[in-house]
Amino acid sequence: METPDNATEPAPAAEQPTGIAAQDWDTASAEPQYRAAVVDLLGALAYGELAAFERLAEDAKLAPTVGDKAALARMAAAEFHHFERLSDRLLAIDADPTGAMEPFGKALDDFHRLTAPSDWLEGLVKAYVGDSIASDFYREVAARLDEDTRALVLAVLDDTGHGNFAVENVRAAIEADPRLGGRLALWARRLMGEALSQAQRVVADRDALSTMLVGGVADGFDLAEVGRMFSRITEAHTKRMAALGLAA
Amino acid sequence: METPDNATEPAPAAEQPTGIAAQDWDTASAEPQYRAAVVDLLGALAYGELAAFERLAEDAKLAPTVGDKAALARMAAAEFHHFERLSDRLLAIDADPTGAMEPFGKALDDFHRLTAPSDWLEGLVKAYVGDSIASDFYREVAARLDEDTRALVLAVLDDTGHGNFAVENVRAAIEADPRLGGRLALWARRLMGEALSQAQRVVADRDALSTMLVGGVADGFDLAEVGRMFSRITEAHTKRMAALGLAA
Repeated sequence: METPDNATEPAPAAEQPTGIAAQDWDTASAEPQYRAAVVDLLGALAYGELAAFERLAEDAKLAPTVGDKAALARMAAAEFHHFERLSDRLLAIDADPTGAMEPFGKALDDFHRLTAPSDWLEGLVKAYVGDSIASDFYREVAARLDEDTRALVLAVLDDTGHGNFAVENVRAAIEADPRLGGRLALWARRLMGEALSQAQRVVADRDALSTMLVGGVADGFDLAEVGRMFSRITEAHTKRMAALGLAA
Repeated sequence: METPDNATEPAPAAEQPTGIAAQDWDTASAEPQYRAAVVDLLGALAYGELAAFERLAEDAKLAPTVGDKAALARMAAAEFHHFERLSDRLLAIDADPTGAMEPFGKALDDFHRLTAPSDWLEGLVKAYVGDSIASDFYREVAARLDEDTRALVLAVLDDTGHGNFAVENVRAAIEADPRLGGRLALWARRLMGEALSQAQRVVADRDALSTMLVGGVADGFDLAEVGRMFSRITEAHTKRMAALGLAA
């Protein structure tokens, strides 16, 4: 099942699927450990979408204009519909959505509580940084999942338009008042730090999920690969900060 | 154009449409005063939906369980889609949604700021009381609108399921702890008082809208009818409070 590296494909996970990634859900889920890991993953993702919904709705209150408010509310509603798809999927595979989400509630709530933005721009930077890191992480994981779960995960990571909205607004604000850049760069670093510390807590707490990430239950993941994945995510974060006009 | 009281029809506005209510938008909007009043009405309704979205999303944070949180988020997303329809309609009739909403932002924001719920049950009572009063009011007004605007207004007033959810949860809480009833009844009275005081401010500020309401621009409305409308709305509120197990 080995395929040669394909130099025309830049994405690290774009090789021909092998192992579990070449299977459908019915085949892959016969392995109870894999099944438990996917329920964990969908639960974490579902709670993340619900929390993103709340955060965007909260940021909408800080919006300087009614138009900005409506734009954020639109993204929040899109996150909610992603949540719905994940929740429906959990039901379809006979898992309880509430039970699947609960183990991740505290880490995500703590993250949001510890990083409550104090103004509109901090809210935009947070949404952008948070969504991007989460999206990078899930895309990396998705490449190792069975094809049905992978299709769902990629679908709910579909851009809700938030990225462009945040980048445009933050860049314009920094151009108008360059001193903002320093404060927002500090803020972005704090966000990245809190995100990593909560992620570590989750990985330490959730056996099924962490076994999939580092134990090779899903295809092609080992500890070295997880290390490389974190490097790629951090690197992508640094590039995004530069695009925002912020030093990472 | 008078129609006799119809004893078999409880709804006061269920007579055969006459005047503007029998016209479509193209005909009715030839009258600039009517057109301005409808833009006002849709703007107020749109901002109300956006504010309801925010309020429900905010209440979702107080939810005791992840399931309750998801239920409130679902209703918030439904309110957002109502907002979208109203906003699209304003664009379709060449009105600027932001401009149409802005005159109503302050009154609705003040109402929500002055009545921020301190816990989950106060949030449910507020959503129920607020939605019901707004819905009663818009239904009364809808009966006097041209048929295209009427169909849209009735569609966005369609129940989002919030009513039943609130009634069930509040009743169950009062049954479990009857002392809650007194506090929540006081709360509901305060909500009704604030709603009326903000509504009066809006009517005093917005000529086009209030002329439609009391000046007979739309068919069949005069000052006496507005008085009767407020009695009907207050009466319905009293009945709903009784259904919740609260003395109005």
